[in-house]
Amino acid sequence: MAEGLGVGICGLGTVGSGTFNLLFGNRAEIESKVGTPVEVRLVGCRRDHPDCDLAGTRVTRDIFDVVGDSEVDVVCELIGGTDAALELVRGALDAGQHVVTANKALIAEHGAALFELAAEKGVQLRFEAAIAGGIPIVKAVREGLSGNRIEGIAGIINGTSNFILTEMSGLGNRGFDEVLAEAQELGYAEADPTFDVEGIDAAHKLTILSSIAFGVPLAFEHIYTEGISAVTVDDIRYAQELGYRLKHLGITRRRESGVELRVHPTLVPETELIAKVDGVMNAVLVSSDAAGTTLYYGAGAGSLPTASSVVADVIDVARSVGATHAVSNLGFAGGTSDARVLPIDETRSAFYLKLTVEDRPGVMASLSTTLSEHDISIESLIQKDASGGQVPIVLITNEVQESQFDAAVRAIESADYTQGEVTRIRVVAFN
Amino acid sequence: MAEGLGVGICGLGTVGSGTFNLLFGNRAEIESKVGTPVEVRLVGCRRDHPDCDLAGTRVTRDIFDVVGDSEVDVVCELIGGTDAALELVRGALDAGQHVVTANKALIAEHGAALFELAAEKGVQLRFEAAIAGGIPIVKAVREGLSGNRIEGIAGIINGTSNFILTEMSGLGNRGFDEVLAEAQELGYAEADPTFDVEGIDAAHKLTILSSIAFGVPLAFEHIYTEGISAVTVDDIRYAQELGYRLKHLGITRRRESGVELRVHPTLVPETELIAKVDGVMNAVLVSSDAAGTTLYYGAGAGSLPTASSVVADVIDVARSVGATHAVSNLGFAGGTSDARVLPIDETRSAFYLKLTVEDRPGVMASLSTTLSEHDISIESLIQKDASGGQVPIVLITNEVQESQFDAAVRAIESADYTQGEVTRIRVVAFN
Repeated sequence: MAEGLGVGICGLGTVGSGTFNLLFGNRAEIESKVGTPVEVRLVGCRRDHPDCDLAGTRVTRDIFDVVGDSEVDVVCELIGGTDAALELVRGALDAGQHVVTANKALIAEHGAALFELAAEKGVQLRFEAAIAGGIPIVKAVREGLSGNRIEGIAGIINGTSNFILTEMSGLGNRGFDEVLAEAQELGYAEADPTFDVEGIDAAHKLTILSSIAFGVPLAFEHIYTEGISAVTVDDIRYAQELGYRLKHLGITRRRESGVELRVHPTLVPETELIAKVDGVMNAVLVSSDAAGTTLYYGAGAGSLPTASSVVADVIDVARSVGATHAVSNLGFAGGTSDARVLPIDETRSAFYLKLTVEDRPGVMASLSTTLSEHDISIESLIQKDASGGQVPIVLITNEVQESQFDAAVRAIESADYTQGEVTRIRVVAFN
Repeated sequence: MAEGLGVGICGLGTVGSGTFNLLFGNRAEIESKVGTPVEVRLVGCRRDHPDCDLAGTRVTRDIFDVVGDSEVDVVCELIGGTDAALELVRGALDAGQHVVTANKALIAEHGAALFELAAEKGVQLRFEAAIAGGIPIVKAVREGLSGNRIEGIAGIINGTSNFILTEMSGLGNRGFDEVLAEAQELGYAEADPTFDVEGIDAAHKLTILSSIAFGVPLAFEHIYTEGISAVTVDDIRYAQELGYRLKHLGITRRRESGVELRVHPTLVPETELIAKVDGVMNAVLVSSDAAGTTLYYGAGAGSLPTASSVVADVIDVARSVGATHAVSNLGFAGGTSDARVLPIDETRSAFYLKLTVEDRPGVMASLSTTLSEHDISIESLIQKDASGGQVPIVLITNEVQESQFDAAVRAIESADYTQGEVTRIRVVAFN
């Protein structure tokens, strides 16, 4: 390390260009922090980036040239995807290079094998930038709260979905399709928005968060995922009347029987700080036995915020080289736990339930009876004005196991007083 | 390190007892994270603590026995104060032991000499628990944002003051003295509340935050400190009408001419997340060039939250032993900058100004003229109902240098239309 740390950047897109510019622009400040120079010694990219001045930097058009390059101690994998990226990361680890990646899909789907390879080779594989952009949440969980037993994590970890829900919650009475189109125009949503609005991006991130929190194996194949495309403005309004905000959350919690791992639209009490996180911003709430509730807020995407986390990881490599017990991989040196991921029907939530019933005496009593026969109580309820012989009812239940709520809903749906569809949204409180 | 890390705890009060119980209760989880046991091998305390089972633990009644003890690799200084604590920490560092402390006064007032000694002896002096209790804010600034140039930090870093201001902002119309008495009953304020409500505690913490953010020397003797004892419910109400919340903030910002370092009541736009942090909770907002605005929220005090940070530091020692470039001291291996602390009259803020003027034509024009002669513009203004020939006026200015605003206030105070006292509160926006 006497001669500094050599960095190779693979991919010069949004994150790669930000990483190059940050390492270059702040190189004096970074050297003064680390005590040794941190230098970009090779950039692998198919084409130059208009924002990057590559004069004086060694460049190759074949990213695989960075693998095993003798001047490169740390390879930054910033190409995305899971094909070439997997080959690249595997190659670099195999060649004894440390790897820093922003690639959530790669870690969530292939992390186990890659971490094993990194451990075998005695190098580090870091991934702060894979979750919540510029927020140092991996560091907070693996290190800042390392003395704690983590109880649960809930995160607004997809900025696109949070932007859409925030706009739908505003006064404009605008539905999902209209706001999505606006988000696409503003560049907050992709032309094909599936990854963001159907929760897949959040599922990748939550899978990783769950593993660093609980030391469980990465379990992307077992996560429950539901997006926001079916959310209606009506439900947002009714929930607001009841004192709740609708957020798209990733939730992972430790339970006696296993670990909850789920991404879905969630109603949160309006008094909680996470309910007040609006627009494209991200926030992650962590509940743990000693620190209690802590929350981490910031930009969840973008060139420089993501680069901030990539560079922090590079600096952490420089700062930890030589340490016998450097934090690595999922943060559990002692191996992973065997706690299973709970199927969604074994998770616990309170529920928002909206239904339309016949406008006649005794219906409310029947509905209450059905719920109480399933050991469910009503915490709050709004009965709207009757029209055409029908009354819309919106209620919030206590916390119950999902299978128990499912059974109650089946009974309600088949009751003679119920008209049409029943809508249900999970409700979770953290304080 | 083959035989694990030996911890010595000095002081078994609120934080010490929490630290002992956390290290003991979570020892299996901690070992699985670190890869080696982290063991309490000696406790120095004048008396036992009812919450701690010390059976099986070596205990001494002389805390100085922990210094140089051959089984203790890390000394946790949790006795508080700056006399015995200074001697203890100096002794431990001198003996080649790492030190973890929760003592903000010690670091803010004596940190420079202690860091120098630690560097000389090749050991670490860590202080996460000194700032904002369970929030890993030192880690976020020194490590999570290490690739960034930090631009500014603003923190609600005294829970007592935030509790009092939150209660004063509520619907009860309760003044400072009444709420302080309640806070004392609830155990949120000391019998002598000076340290908390006059801003000294926050000043200690901000001094340290400023140094880790900017690499400037610890400058507790130069910090500007103003508490909340002069805040009135009227000002809180008027500010709310204008869209602001009153918070007691520590603010440190990098400016071309130096570093702002100040603790005082501050109006913050109600739309900002930090304005929504209520009760005894703490939050620290960091502005930096790449990550942008990030915010860290959690419990700022208490036995287990503070212990969480002490134990995280202990684990960080275990994880970084052997590293050539381990992060240490203020986080700037390359030494500190020579940026000076700006006197308060060289800082920049917007201002809230409340005054009572004569109820006659032309007064508003004169007031506007006086302000504009000092290059100050009015961003918003409320004129209340006249009574007894007097009109109360409340206004918010643009951002100006404080000396410039002082001159304008002197001119307004000596104007013939002004009746009685003028009230001013600094206004700072972060987004």
